[in-house]
Amino acid sequence: MKLFLKIRFIGTAYAGYQVQKNAPTVQAAMNRACRDLFGFDCNVTGCSRTDAGVHALCFCVTVEKKGTDSLETVIPAEKIPYALNNRLPPDISVLEASWKPSDFHARYSVTGKTYIYRFLVSAQPDPFEKDRALHCPRPLPDDAAQIMDRAASAYIGRHDFTSFMAAGSKITDAVRTVTSAGVTRDGGVITFRVSADGFLYHMVRIMAGTLLDTAYGRIAPEQIPGILAAHDRRLAGPTLPPHGLYLADVRYDEPEYPVEDYRSKSFN
Amino acid sequence: MKLFLKIRFIGTAYAGYQVQKNAPTVQAAMNRACRDLFGFDCNVTGCSRTDAGVHALCFCVTVEKKGTDSLETVIPAEKIPYALNNRLPPDISVLEASWKPSDFHARYSVTGKTYIYRFLVSAQPDPFEKDRALHCPRPLPDDAAQIMDRAASAYIGRHDFTSFMAAGSKITDAVRTVTSAGVTRDGGVITFRVSADGFLYHMVRIMAGTLLDTAYGRIAPEQIPGILAAHDRRLAGPTLPPHGLYLADVRYDEPEYPVEDYRSKSFN
Repeated sequence: MKLFLKIRFIGTAYAGYQVQKNAPTVQAAMNRACRDLFGFDCNVTGCSRTDAGVHALCFCVTVEKKGTDSLETVIPAEKIPYALNNRLPPDISVLEASWKPSDFHARYSVTGKTYIYRFLVSAQPDPFEKDRALHCPRPLPDDAAQIMDRAASAYIGRHDFTSFMAAGSKITDAVRTVTSAGVTRDGGVITFRVSADGFLYHMVRIMAGTLLDTAYGRIAPEQIPGILAAHDRRLAGPTLPPHGLYLADVRYDEPEYPVEDYRSKSFN
Repeated sequence: MKLFLKIRFIGTAYAGYQVQKNAPTVQAAMNRACRDLFGFDCNVTGCSRTDAGVHALCFCVTVEKKGTDSLETVIPAEKIPYALNNRLPPDISVLEASWKPSDFHARYSVTGKTYIYRFLVSAQPDPFEKDRALHCPRPLPDDAAQIMDRAASAYIGRHDFTSFMAAGSKITDAVRTVTSAGVTRDGGVITFRVSADGFLYHMVRIMAGTLLDTAYGRIAPEQIPGILAAHDRRLAGPTLPPHGLYLADVRYDEPEYPVEDYRSKSFN
């Protein structure tokens, strides 16, 4: 059996999830805490790579003894979050622990993920949102969230997302299925939430940049289907900075909505 | 005229608002930024003292040239927040600037304030709530917020709050009028919000500690009136730590509700 953990982290201090030489990473911190707790070297395998500065409300990992596909311990699963949190820095927290069969893979078994991108709309910066939302000091229309929500609905469905992929990506199949996409506003914070069976490199940050362009009137919501159809990165909006982005949920079973739901939405 | 500023700050890095020798304070940071912008020494007078680690969503100050009761500048008020925020650390932000007559006093002209105290109810710590909410890892009943809200309603009205004042305070008149008090829950975060014409030293932190005691079943909500009437600090709950406390609003005119409203509530 493999140990399966749901973790949460503030990405600000890290050069992303994946271990790198000469840079602090979430994986390196997890490796250290696991070695300290279990007494042997471990592999902590993540559900996703994340860029530097990107946050996670829910990120999933498996822990195996290094060189094997399982982990043996006498520590009961329900005690492991406490034991690991005592060994982790305060910007990383283990929320839950359970066991998965050895053929389960934290990354390849993923069936869907949800990201959010947060915008702070205010003339002046908010200390509490520093590094946690993209500060948009230029005034936005009162109905900015409604405009962005209308534009986001065009993302829903099975599409080739080449226009929303970092230029130069080596991916040959850019078809992904977005099962939900929407924008809400709570006071000064606008939140874009999107779920899909998978995401291309920088896809959410480009989707969010395109939505912000609709709010500022540079792109009309009605243009999104055309931008998708063109398979041309240059037509979509800018890649927004990482600090507004959060991995919010990871699924390993059924998509969030039955297939019929999102199809009916996308072909409206 | 005096310059009047609404500011917001994360209190974690500061030994409170008021200038102290050999400790960083919000007032010292404001004094430095104002001297840098206006070119002369300033007095930045706050609406309130705050303890180390306490936050402010809205804190009001006036700025005067040192040794005078006014400030002269050619900078228009609407430009001042941008200019000061360029000179302030990111954990302090100026939200708004305007002008007040010279007889206005940031502290003595206050007619009411609102505080909130935030509790994080979760087995494991949440990195995003570190230093921003009191972590309560012990399970609370599902209706904890309702119990606390019922208890909080007993604070409303004109009472002698000696039981909710730090022991050893030199204050002789502990009568304050609480105009509203309530508890809400949003996911894992329980928020206590209280407004009054004034607060005694540690009053909100003791009120919050007493509410937490009601949620854990150590005090019944029905006991609050008796605790108030006893004028005995030992009967109320503990003084909770500063990092869950936020000054949320400051009023300089009418109380939040007409007098009849809170009277009818308190004498129910």
